[in-house]
Amino acid sequence: MTEGVNELHETYDVSGHAEMLAIRRAQKELQTNDLSAYTMYASGEPCPMCLAAMYLAGIENVFYCASMEEAVEAGLGKAKTIYEDMQKPKSERTLSMIHMPLDDGAENPMTLWRERK
Amino acid sequence: MTEGVNELHETYDVSGHAEMLAIRRAQKELQTNDLSAYTMYASGEPCPMCLAAMYLAGIENVFYCASMEEAVEAGLGKAKTIYEDMQKPKSERTLSMIHMPLDDGAENPMTLWRERK
Repeated sequence: MTEGVNELHETYDVSGHAEMLAIRRAQKELQTNDLSAYTMYASGEPCPMCLAAMYLAGIENVFYCASMEEAVEAGLGKAKTIYEDMQKPKSERTLSMIHMPLDDGAENPMTLWRERK
Repeated sequence: MTEGVNELHETYDVSGHAEMLAIRRAQKELQTNDLSAYTMYASGEPCPMCLAAMYLAGIENVFYCASMEEAVEAGLGKAKTIYEDMQKPKSERTLSMIHMPLDDGAENPMTLWRERK
């Protein structure tokens, strides 16, 4: 079992949410990125960063106590706002996502990755 | 300017995406969680973990080169799958989110947080 506690206030690291730290510590300890056999227990409903990290780690179950609505009531509503913004079409989001495609003829790193030996 | 390169393969850390590392390094260097004056440049369209981290850091603009579709073509389609799953109602997702409310009368950490002095 590994644990994490929100270290945001100490370390200046927005990725310091408890769930992220627990995942990072488990992966380091077990020397694997695959936590598919593991379950996450969180005090509150995970924010989208932490939830996506669970997906990336292959975690299939997360138990949480406080709902997003309770977090909002406690003045911790940022995660809900982010979830809502991420649901919108890119053009309507507060965070602008600007696609800058490669110029014609430029070497494409995605193609190089696909063709790697 | 801070930079990050995907360190997933070296460190067993799914939070080792380039964007996450760049954010963490910038926050540590500047001793702040607020990167609202900064712009992210990414080789590919960010995954939901990295995108949410940008929101948490207050970044308002991200430029990216390869689109999610190009990533899928290159065999890097996990982010797209996660975005799609996160759009679904909780009950239909591959990652089960199980709400375990507090028992009646149990001390609620969210209330304690709200009432802290």
